[in-house]
Amino acid sequence: MSSHAINRAESETGDPLLLTPGPLTTSKSVKAVMVHDWGSRDATFLKINEEVLARLPEIIHGEETYVTVPMQGSGTFAVEAMLTSLVPPDGKVLVLINGAYGHRAKRILDIACRETTAYETAEDTPPDLTAIDEILKNDPTITHVFAVHCETTSGIRNPIEAIGKLVARHGRRFLIDAMSAFGALPLDARETPFDAVAASSNKCIEGVPGLGFVIVKRDVVSGAKGNATTLVLDLHDQWQNFEKSGQFRFTPPIHVIVAFHQALKEFWAEGGVQGRGGRYAENGKILIDGMRELGFRTLLPADLQAPIIVTFHMPSDPAFVFQKFYDGLSERGFLIYPGKLTVADSFRIGCIGRLYPKDMRAALEAVRDVLTTLGVATPLRKAA
Amino acid sequence: MSSHAINRAESETGDPLLLTPGPLTTSKSVKAVMVHDWGSRDATFLKINEEVLARLPEIIHGEETYVTVPMQGSGTFAVEAMLTSLVPPDGKVLVLINGAYGHRAKRILDIACRETTAYETAEDTPPDLTAIDEILKNDPTITHVFAVHCETTSGIRNPIEAIGKLVARHGRRFLIDAMSAFGALPLDARETPFDAVAASSNKCIEGVPGLGFVIVKRDVVSGAKGNATTLVLDLHDQWQNFEKSGQFRFTPPIHVIVAFHQALKEFWAEGGVQGRGGRYAENGKILIDGMRELGFRTLLPADLQAPIIVTFHMPSDPAFVFQKFYDGLSERGFLIYPGKLTVADSFRIGCIGRLYPKDMRAALEAVRDVLTTLGVATPLRKAA
Ligand SMILES: Cc1ncc(COP(=O)(O)O)c(C=O)c1O
Ligand SMILES: Cc1ncc(COP(=O)(O)O)c(C=O)c1O
Repeated sequence: MSSHAINRAESETGDPLLLTPGPLTTSKSVKAVMVHDWGSRDATFLKINEEVLARLPEIIHGEETYVTVPMQGSGTFAVEAMLTSLVPPDGKVLVLINGAYGHRAKRILDIACRETTAYETAEDTPPDLTAIDEILKNDPTITHVFAVHCETTSGIRNPIEAIGKLVARHGRRFLIDAMSAFGALPLDARETPFDAVAASSNKCIEGVPGLGFVIVKRDVVSGAKGNATTLVLDLHDQWQNFEKSGQFRFTPPIHVIVAFHQALKEFWAEGGVQGRGGRYAENGKILIDGMRELGFRTLLPADLQAPIIVTFHMPSDPAFVFQKFYDGLSERGFLIYPGKLTVADSFRIGCIGRLYPKDMRAALEAVRDVLTTLGVATPLRKAA
Repeated sequence: MSSHAINRAESETGDPLLLTPGPLTTSKSVKAVMVHDWGSRDATFLKINEEVLARLPEIIHGEETYVTVPMQGSGTFAVEAMLTSLVPPDGKVLVLINGAYGHRAKRILDIACRETTAYETAEDTPPDLTAIDEILKNDPTITHVFAVHCETTSGIRNPIEAIGKLVARHGRRFLIDAMSAFGALPLDARETPFDAVAASSNKCIEGVPGLGFVIVKRDVVSGAKGNATTLVLDLHDQWQNFEKSGQFRFTPPIHVIVAFHQALKEFWAEGGVQGRGGRYAENGKILIDGMRELGFRTLLPADLQAPIIVTFHMPSDPAFVFQKFYDGLSERGFLIYPGKLTVADSFRIGCIGRLYPKDMRAALEAVRDVLTTLGVATPLRKAA
């Protein structure tokens, strides 16, 4: 379509680079381990699975008191399993909302007939600690607080540590959706009190999608018998089966788990949260600096921005048509996230996955090239 | 351990052959397509997914009136989604039970607070049609009947066609768990009336595990709004999202779906249900004939035996120790199913997956060899 030759970026396996909040670009070695078959009840697979479960709590420094309960399905399955299994029928949850995933948690609790109270702030605004303090003080019937670590809707980093401490001071229980943050943003159970955290295979650990998991205090999951509203999402039942037999209750997504096992090896080899989070922070800085240079504006100030996904305001130049921008980047081997926010006309670019600073620089080159092709003047004109 | 050289069978990818009821041995080409990355909301993946969904109803000759609703997770997730989304809160289900999967369906309905009545027969006995007729006649409050096509617990083939016709005559709705039968045993919606059938990626279609699906009448799923007891297992909501956007509500297990797409191609190339079922029938015949020659006895008579998995009585010779038998076969590259029945002391060997008559013959050789190594005389002595 365009008249000049187009540079097309590709991954080790010849694929477009995924600048999305997950599923992500993964290493070739993570995917290559899937080209085998395993018996789901045979020792070879059970050992791989056990290694996955055993090492995950180390990431939150919770290996003494926490266990991992895996949940087939996507991340939302793990969140629904956590909420419906750990909040008893007579519990009440304060849901902190500043994006789609907070709303989703509330919807899950509503469907499960768990009482909730929501404290919502705008998508670019973290919850106010004084407000939470007030709510908990005024409503002693609240048993649990739910928060999203990095609210992927905007990319905002919520103050999980401070919230956890506040919740503990009020003697309430804390449940975290850390889906997009887990493995990249530090979460230390020795510092931040919480009952459970939900995440998935295909975000910052850089596995393939198909498995969620909940890292939960052993005494909390062991005391959760009978809470669940389903068979398959019953965290207590799933945990108990592992205790008894080391096996899944139902067929596990074996290939996904074996890939996750390899991804965890590569995660540790990169230096764990520090190494992985460090690379993402560098990716994010290059992306933001480069986009700013082109005249783009971020939704969030630096102190609220997690190094996961970055929201940019839509340029006002009428030559900038988002679908053409998306397609142009796609043609150049970069897939960005087509989803939208409510708070502002904007688009998002992720900086997680098997991407390195050189990839972010190449992405910026592609952005510049697409803008030129579309006839969008850079740097962008300042406007709403 | 044994003094003679051991022949070790292996698959195309160097793995043990899985003589289990799934996950199964899959083709190398099915697994090899997973060594890529895709954006979950990008056109390339969405097209692959759409092809999967569109072609599945052809397998039941239901392409006019049925739609496929995929469900992340294992097969049980699809069964629970089907039962909790399609049976309304004031419905009542007659659950036909002759094995673990019938019991599981009842448990799912109990947890969901759906009224049930169970009609249970022994694991080696199909339900009696006259009895079902009586139950439906005497209880007009029953709205749905649930049955398992091949009850994998024993390998028994339940009379789905006759049950379906009977249920329709009574004007009730019919829901089927065809997990282990789908794609191998014929199920023709033009002949057998039913509302929905649940199955998964990793049985007779020979994909990898991680995806279940429900093939459901369009008007049934479109009328199921508000029934579900969860967010993630809500079949109506999942369906509606595909209607609106062609997309999953939550991250799909992309690699599993792409492998399933390839597996479906290979399924059609083999001649669909007729070709696939034909190969399995040949596998089953070789297995049963060979095992009988060694003196083993099957639990089921030929007319009840599905060509999926075969249950054999445990030999009475004290030299036959099941764990040693399992390990001996494993050493020779064959994994059988370690699970047990309640009706009889027995073990099971599957004949589905990427296995051919030559593999079944090799498996029989391995069985003979292990028996010799264990000092079990063949043919086995006749006993209980
Ligand atoms: C914070 C958060 N929670 C939950 C989810 C849902 O995960 P999934 O799409 O795997 O169900 C996501 C996905 O991006 C997320 O970022
Ligand atoms: C008849 C039947 N129903 C349900 C299931 C459950 O499937 P999964 O283990 O994938 O949850 C199986 C598994 O073998 C089955 O054979």
